[in-house]
Amino acid sequence: MYNIRTDLAVEARDIYKESSKLDSIPGIESEEDDRGNISITRVRVTNEEGERAIGKKPGIYITIETPALRGNNPDEAEKITNVLKDELTKILGDCEKKNVLVAGLGNSRITPDSIGPKTVSNLVVTRHLFSTMPHEFCDGLSHVCAIAPGVLGVTGIETGEIIRGVAERIKPDVIIAVDALASRKMERVSTTIQIADTGISPGSGVGNKRKALDRETLGVPVIAIGVPMVVDAATIAIDTIDALIGAMDNSTVLDNQKESLIRSVVSDTQTMVTPKDIDSIAERISKILANGINFALHKGLSAEEISVFTG
Amino acid sequence: MYNIRTDLAVEARDIYKESSKLDSIPGIESEEDDRGNISITRVRVTNEEGERAIGKKPGIYITIETPALRGNNPDEAEKITNVLKDELTKILGDCEKKNVLVAGLGNSRITPDSIGPKTVSNLVVTRHLFSTMPHEFCDGLSHVCAIAPGVLGVTGIETGEIIRGVAERIKPDVIIAVDALASRKMERVSTTIQIADTGISPGSGVGNKRKALDRETLGVPVIAIGVPMVVDAATIAIDTIDALIGAMDNSTVLDNQKESLIRSVVSDTQTMVTPKDIDSIAERISKILANGINFALHKGLSAEEISVFTG
Amino acid sequence: MYNIRTDLAVEARDIYKESSKLDSIPGIESEEDDRGNISITRVRVTNEEGERAIGKKPGIYITIETPALRGNNPDEAEKITNVLKDELTKILGDCEKKNVLVAGLGNSRITPDSIGPKTVSNLVVTRHLFSTMPHEFCDGLSHVCAIAPGVLGVTGIETGEIIRGVAERIKPDVIIAVDALASRKMERVSTTIQIADTGISPGSGVGNKRKALDRETLGVPVIAIGVPMVVDAATIAIDTIDALIGAMDNSTVLDNQKESLIRSVVSDTQTMVTPKDIDSIAERISKILANGINFALHKGLSAEEISVFTG
Amino acid sequence: MYNIRTDLAVEARDIYKESSKLDSIPGIESEEDDRGNISITRVRVTNEEGERAIGKKPGIYITIETPALRGNNPDEAEKITNVLKDELTKILGDCEKKNVLVAGLGNSRITPDSIGPKTVSNLVVTRHLFSTMPHEFCDGLSHVCAIAPGVLGVTGIETGEIIRGVAERIKPDVIIAVDALASRKMERVSTTIQIADTGISPGSGVGNKRKALDRETLGVPVIAIGVPMVVDAATIAIDTIDALIGAMDNSTVLDNQKESLIRSVVSDTQTMVTPKDIDSIAERISKILANGINFALHKGLSAEEISVFTG
Repeated sequence: MYNIRTDLAVEARDIYKESSKLDSIPGIESEEDDRGNISITRVRVTNEEGERAIGKKPGIYITIETPALRGNNPDEAEKITNVLKDELTKILGDCEKKNVLVAGLGNSRITPDSIGPKTVSNLVVTRHLFSTMPHEFCDGLSHVCAIAPGVLGVTGIETGEIIRGVAERIKPDVIIAVDALASRKMERVSTTIQIADTGISPGSGVGNKRKALDRETLGVPVIAIGVPMVVDAATIAIDTIDALIGAMDNSTVLDNQKESLIRSVVSDTQTMVTPKDIDSIAERISKILANGINFALHKGLSAEEISVFTG
Repeated sequence: MYNIRTDLAVEARDIYKESSKLDSIPGIESEEDDRGNISITRVRVTNEEGERAIGKKPGIYITIETPALRGNNPDEAEKITNVLKDELTKILGDCEKKNVLVAGLGNSRITPDSIGPKTVSNLVVTRHLFSTMPHEFCDGLSHVCAIAPGVLGVTGIETGEIIRGVAERIKPDVIIAVDALASRKMERVSTTIQIADTGISPGSGVGNKRKALDRETLGVPVIAIGVPMVVDAATIAIDTIDALIGAMDNSTVLDNQKESLIRSVVSDTQTMVTPKDIDSIAERISKILANGINFALHKGLSAEEISVFTG
Repeated sequence: MYNIRTDLAVEARDIYKESSKLDSIPGIESEEDDRGNISITRVRVTNEEGERAIGKKPGIYITIETPALRGNNPDEAEKITNVLKDELTKILGDCEKKNVLVAGLGNSRITPDSIGPKTVSNLVVTRHLFSTMPHEFCDGLSHVCAIAPGVLGVTGIETGEIIRGVAERIKPDVIIAVDALASRKMERVSTTIQIADTGISPGSGVGNKRKALDRETLGVPVIAIGVPMVVDAATIAIDTIDALIGAMDNSTVLDNQKESLIRSVVSDTQTMVTPKDIDSIAERISKILANGINFALHKGLSAEEISVFTG
Repeated sequence: MYNIRTDLAVEARDIYKESSKLDSIPGIESEEDDRGNISITRVRVTNEEGERAIGKKPGIYITIETPALRGNNPDEAEKITNVLKDELTKILGDCEKKNVLVAGLGNSRITPDSIGPKTVSNLVVTRHLFSTMPHEFCDGLSHVCAIAPGVLGVTGIETGEIIRGVAERIKPDVIIAVDALASRKMERVSTTIQIADTGISPGSGVGNKRKALDRETLGVPVIAIGVPMVVDAATIAIDTIDALIGAMDNSTVLDNQKESLIRSVVSDTQTMVTPKDIDSIAERISKILANGINFALHKGLSAEEISVFTG
């Protein structure tokens, strides 16, 4: 069947629930939380049964959802930043004085794939300051360094190889990987942040970022932060078919018929569906992600001091 | 009915033919031409009957079609440039020494809407050189000037007002307006150039560029050059429905049912479908458009000299 | 003599004072003001005698000076923004409900010359909203529109022609022209804002922006806001010579000797001296200029609302 | 004394010759070559005596000089590209099928420091294609991969650490490092390419790229390619003093007097002198460097094929 991948555990869970008609899935625990108009869902994959069901590795997947992420209201941006900071703080555990490597994945020249590199350029990077700055200055700061390794098609090197090479030299305690995600539903595009403690899985995101980035391959915990920025054009065709079939009770469409229909409509698989103002959305979301990380890692810095650092 | 506009006369003609089951449309003349893998269609709207049928003003609409426009083969780009130059030369008539104002319409900060401003930045602009350069230098050059007026949401001024204001001062003999277009079919996106001698009609393109730019409003001929860069996400839903209904003989879907189906699938009307590498496609197409114009207007310049001018 | 132009009235005054050994210049009135570490100087050229002395047209020239303009401290930026707003408010007089056209002069592709276009892109543009938005919404807003006309070398059209053409159509009550300036001293680069009610004079700025933009040519008051962003490389040579001569009491260097010396050192007149981080300085200064204008014109908007508008 | 560093061996040689009044320097061999208006100088530091004299490590330093490098004539660019290809081919030796890592050093957001990253983005990167493409396709191609590691102030990681980490994983046979250089004379800025087989020395370039990148630290040969893009503003002051003293026979200025003079003129050490159109110069030079590398490494590719690859 024409199968569209989602990087969001919460979507994978919902799709499984719908197709299996199950109310609860063995191996999957969920909890929901609200902070104003921001809803937080924590999906925990507790065992291999859960992994098989929704196709996500055991671990925790936190989804922060709000249409305000797409907007440009600075008040709302501050609220989302704070939620992100709090969730990150919990998932990072005691990060005081930790060495953190942030990797901004994706292609800086393809707008919807650029939030990783853009986030990195808004970080307060401090690792190089510790040897030269006075001791007091560094109170409340983590050792943060950051790279934007580029994508395979541009560098000729798997992203994972670059990160592993750098990590072997600088020995971080934890890696935070920021990336654009693929989602299944248009309404989640640029409205959802997912934080996972399971790293990045093969084939994630808009492009081709093969080879897992996780504790197994990198030797340290890998926290993944991502935002869906596009959906595949085929999702619209699939959703239309499903909606149409739902509307015509006694009709059925076979799966292979469905696939050929979709192929006929969406001829070019290299298309994507994005919001029209994706350029400015990508800028704003990258700032929110960067500041969530900045606040979570540098508890000693005020919003103002972070502005001074990041210009 | 949920009606998706197309800026392409050739598409409007095909849609009308299909729905009317007519083989030829009164008031519409068409001819086709091939140059290698580039197909050229000239649709002429000869009277008001033709205008009513396909919703395009009387005049000529030339469509240059080739998948190579989307690619990055410099040989192919040169061929397309030459076809564009030839068609432009014919439509401009005797342009030797003419004063030409090129207007690059659209929003330079929204990638698929940026080909107008990007084209302008690759033009050989000469108007200011004629007073200072030796006479021989100017042989074979037209007087070309160019502006990228910006869009209403950014300037607060209708594009047409800016162009009219500038045109009233510099008195061009002809205006060439370059713009991104909307098309009805994904396969035409970044594979089709339309040249029209009827100017730009209200509501064209990706954004909101109201108020006609044509001989009537500007007092001189307005040649429009455009390339479809996106389709509305709803087109995919509509095409899917049509394909599905075609596949299920005895089913019918009412128009209002269709519309609510589409609304349910494509919730956010501010979405668009584009090729994934729209950023580099927009760069390349802008260069082709600019060079087609450069060669058509500056018959005295070699490809090399144009490179020297445009850096 | 090798004469380096300054766009700053305060520098022209000081140079005249020094060479004439006069303490006060007939036709020139000055007053100084301090707000924290921001010093404000108001130089008024009251008659033609003053104009002849310092080469600036009769009118008021306000200089806001602070090294913080070059930095990236958001607190300091806010203070500078407020001073700019206050001075602009005074010079604009009653601007409530006025129609204001802001022109961002300069070349967006040459970083130190880009602050005009960059300022325009950070403005709250409202002119097009008045016809569609509810009446209450528009309380406390001026009618603001904005263009970045580009430079002669890129458009083939004098900047003044474009602005005049647009102004004739949209009939603004006042024009604000934002531009990069030339200064005589490196220490003023990116540390000084000049506001003048006399418009823009021929030859100002980094490039070639000929033809005056003033009340005489445009028919309405023209407020010029500028920041020096570069100095000519020759200024360094001149200053060195003067310093060296000052250090060697009994030596003299003739003016023509001086000029040939400078020519020998600064062979290429197309060089400029800028701060190393001119890219980020230009971004930040443009935001300060834009917000100074935004607050002066839209008294009804909070800082937050302005952020929402400008994204 | 106020000492301005040069990264160019040819300049260091000339400065030493002038101050030592020696015609030939022990441990330094030079040869000159001309190809049209392009002059090629090969300076060989043959032993430690030569190293002490001019402060450059033993090895070969090839300088390709032509004012055309700064211009935008495609014919001239092609000639320079060919010279660069030939010199690179000689210095690389047998590179057929070699694994090459190209590192684009410098800060992509500071224009004169961006030629390293910009060069990387114009390379034909092939390393990832060898496993998937047919054997014939890869004839005449080297295995090329490329990274732009960013600068210490942005990443928090020494450039050398990143390159070493990546090199340890991908085991290149040779590393090519591309970087902006500092020169002592304005006339060399954007007119000179230096190729050296000694890698990159500490403190090179515009910014702070500490820690050597050479065979010793990286384990494989490191070919450095660089172009001077700025001079320090102080060089103008120094040159002025020297010219002035030369013009006044019986005057002398003490070194410490000279230094305080320069300090008084060039207050801000964070200034640089660049050509006014540095933005477009940096674009064009990066393309020439990239194509010189592309042709040297991929002998099987035509100019056209390289265009197809690099878009």
